[in-house]
Amino acid sequence: MKELKERILKEGKAVDEEVLKVDSFLNHKVDPKLMQAIGRDFAGHFKDQGITKVVTIESSGIAPALMTAFEMQIPMVILKKHPSRILNDDLLQTEVMSYTTKIGYELSLSSHQIGESDHVLIVDDFLANGEAVTGAMRLMRMAGATIAGLGIVIEKSYQPGRDKIVSQGVPVYSLARIRHMEKDRIEFYPDEEE
Amino acid sequence: MKELKERILKEGKAVDEEVLKVDSFLNHKVDPKLMQAIGRDFAGHFKDQGITKVVTIESSGIAPALMTAFEMQIPMVILKKHPSRILNDDLLQTEVMSYTTKIGYELSLSSHQIGESDHVLIVDDFLANGEAVTGAMRLMRMAGATIAGLGIVIEKSYQPGRDKIVSQGVPVYSLARIRHMEKDRIEFYPDEEE
Repeated sequence: MKELKERILKEGKAVDEEVLKVDSFLNHKVDPKLMQAIGRDFAGHFKDQGITKVVTIESSGIAPALMTAFEMQIPMVILKKHPSRILNDDLLQTEVMSYTTKIGYELSLSSHQIGESDHVLIVDDFLANGEAVTGAMRLMRMAGATIAGLGIVIEKSYQPGRDKIVSQGVPVYSLARIRHMEKDRIEFYPDEEE
Repeated sequence: MKELKERILKEGKAVDEEVLKVDSFLNHKVDPKLMQAIGRDFAGHFKDQGITKVVTIESSGIAPALMTAFEMQIPMVILKKHPSRILNDDLLQTEVMSYTTKIGYELSLSSHQIGESDHVLIVDDFLANGEAVTGAMRLMRMAGATIAGLGIVIEKSYQPGRDKIVSQGVPVYSLARIRHMEKDRIEFYPDEEE
């Protein structure tokens, strides 16, 4: 997605090969017009597949996922990292271990919100090692739902996330695929559909 | 807001006088069309006030805040409860203590994203005791920004949050104001602008 890649090159900051700061339009300050463009791109790519819900993981995935769900005219479901005391009956949970921090957390879903009749699109802001998304996929299977695919805003393609997901038979569609990153230098793959 | 109140009565669940579950359209599963209607209502109410940014607190406020920012054609800024290692330079922080859980957390903002030229609208899903929003207002003042007002989706008007905010001179506009709540019973105030 040309507009997104230009924005990453202009405003993003590659701190090292691990960390890309996109705080000025995606993760901290958020550009709603860009989120709409992202939502339209995902909705177009995954159209006519019978998708019933867009699923995301709190909290940086919520903005692009909401706009995708809006464009597809279906609900969004937010998987919780910190289940509140309000969200406590019929809770499905799975542990996710962060590759970088080595800290684990429970990803949670109420079984009232997703079930066997659902065919979901999972949307997230970043794909790197794929732990969070793998946890989301486990939760979908626990709920009996099927997975149409993954919509990723920024993929660090030199990390193992994509292969991990694709090897489970789930298509991954990423709007900006980073081939190589080092301090102050970002190199993309060409767009999948260009 | 008629549509919202009807939705709360139809799908919300009053567990006791403290806890209202709105997991099927606002906090866990999210209805993007309703979020758009909420965004339009806030944008209409706060129009022509020179607002430069919509500010919210992760994560349940993000969906209504994004749609408000979209309608107002301005950016949204997400205050973080769990600052990542990516969000670490020029960080403004303030402690928020939860009235119900008595657990504190640091609310964080990068000073790059909001400054002295900003006049902000704070949007959140719930207003009860007002701790989170009071923390957000402190952060805005630390950043040198001014506050146009607060847009709240659901206000528990029998709790002290509203008075706490209004006594600081900040207008509060809530789309559904609950006058009284007990198990399986919810009673609203009439709409402010009906």
